[in-house]
Amino acid sequence: MDADVDVLRLRLDLAYDGTDFSGWASQPGRRTVQGVLEEALGRVLRLPGPPHLTVAGRTDAGVHAEGQAAHLDVPRAAWAEVSPDRVPWSLAGVLPPDVRVRTLTEAPAGFDARFSALWRRYRYRVSDTLAAADPLRRRDTLWHPRPLRLERMNAAAGPLLGEHDFAAFCRRREGATTVRRLLRLDWSRDDSGVLVATVVADAFCHNMVRALIGALIAVGEERRDPGWPRQLLSAAVRDGAVHVAPAHGLCLAEVRYPPPAQLAARAAATRRVRPTPPVT
Amino acid sequence: MDADVDVLRLRLDLAYDGTDFSGWASQPGRRTVQGVLEEALGRVLRLPGPPHLTVAGRTDAGVHAEGQAAHLDVPRAAWAEVSPDRVPWSLAGVLPPDVRVRTLTEAPAGFDARFSALWRRYRYRVSDTLAAADPLRRRDTLWHPRPLRLERMNAAAGPLLGEHDFAAFCRRREGATTVRRLLRLDWSRDDSGVLVATVVADAFCHNMVRALIGALIAVGEERRDPGWPRQLLSAAVRDGAVHVAPAHGLCLAEVRYPPPAQLAARAAATRRVRPTPPVT
Repeated sequence: MDADVDVLRLRLDLAYDGTDFSGWASQPGRRTVQGVLEEALGRVLRLPGPPHLTVAGRTDAGVHAEGQAAHLDVPRAAWAEVSPDRVPWSLAGVLPPDVRVRTLTEAPAGFDARFSALWRRYRYRVSDTLAAADPLRRRDTLWHPRPLRLERMNAAAGPLLGEHDFAAFCRRREGATTVRRLLRLDWSRDDSGVLVATVVADAFCHNMVRALIGALIAVGEERRDPGWPRQLLSAAVRDGAVHVAPAHGLCLAEVRYPPPAQLAARAAATRRVRPTPPVT
Repeated sequence: MDADVDVLRLRLDLAYDGTDFSGWASQPGRRTVQGVLEEALGRVLRLPGPPHLTVAGRTDAGVHAEGQAAHLDVPRAAWAEVSPDRVPWSLAGVLPPDVRVRTLTEAPAGFDARFSALWRRYRYRVSDTLAAADPLRRRDTLWHPRPLRLERMNAAAGPLLGEHDFAAFCRRREGATTVRRLLRLDWSRDDSGVLVATVVADAFCHNMVRALIGALIAVGEERRDPGWPRQLLSAAVRDGAVHVAPAHGLCLAEVRYPPPAQLAARAAATRRVRPTPPVT
């Protein structure tokens, strides 16, 4: 496809409020981010039908995105007929208010929204005190009615960093590896007292962020010891004691790509390690 | 009332998403923050009926609050029968999710949520570029489809500071003064590129913040000169050319009170200057 001279690859950067979507991936009869976006792109770019989008992070139902990335391939002739600077504004006029394309640009050679990514960064927001309650943020903040101990959660998070088999925190898919490299996992309180987790990995398997957050919340409220999440990891099997944290506290904040010259090599390397589709 | 030994004054600090409220003030047949809160307080404190709340800032329909303050007077006997630490949690169980009482405490002597306040701080959020579009914040951010020039807006704002007759920016009420002391009015861009105005005054007359913001937006998009808002102010009559900015970008961020020993004196001084009710 990349070598097709009549086809151009476009990169989209987008943001959405996941509350009223059944997740990213198209499903028959459901309102999904992918479905809504593909429909709008087909209209604005005057394509014969909705194009296919490939996304960096296939977010679940209710999960939000601030820094999602995707790509699509369009006929050069179609792109030549639109004014590239105006396309995001045209899309804003067609899309519902809960999803916005921030930028739409010609992708550099070798760009693949999914396979070229170096890492994904997610954030998870938890309000554990009424003094920090903010009804304006209730759509992207979990309200937890008991105080959480920040230092316990961070003590439990540290030993999870690095490359491991995260099977204990993943919904297993036939034939897919659950080995991932966790680059960052820590909590802080923002100015208003809300707990914010930052989670960075090369990629995430299905449910992985929310299962990690659920395990750390159990530590934070002293139902579990700080060593418990690391023990789960070592067992390398899914444990029913891990509660997957609710979707609405989670937001895909950023996807990072290498410099243009390294995009193709990165994509080739990722395909070797993860030949079957990882989810999220 | 303050001297009544059988009655206790309570201070509430609260936050709400104004989207689905017809403003603060009770109105027959409308869903208002005051109405919903008074009803919940009556139930949780087991009062014979809903108590009366006095608020620091009477916000309009659609305006939000993060740092609103209010007071109510309750029989000491009723307060003695509840567990004060638990009352905010009980209220959270009764209130709808778009309003939360953060704290509820015995007010110091001389406290009056409206008349003791030294100043009110509002913020107004405007996104003037798609690159900063965040659907999760669409309920408290105005989307402005043309770029706004920060430095022009700040140049126009500076000369408005100080004590003036703000009649040009107020909806006039019979017998009420429109003299206010504007302590701060400036714009900055936050980390994601959203324009945020900070507006502080001893008090605001009706529509004042949104009229000031509307005038500055006209300057920011170069429809008006930076000297225009100051000219309006000098004319001291309401000018139809000032567009009141939409309610949903506005949030009451903070109400500041003096130290306890000065509360009563501050309230007495305010009552002398503004004997008729200011709105907002």
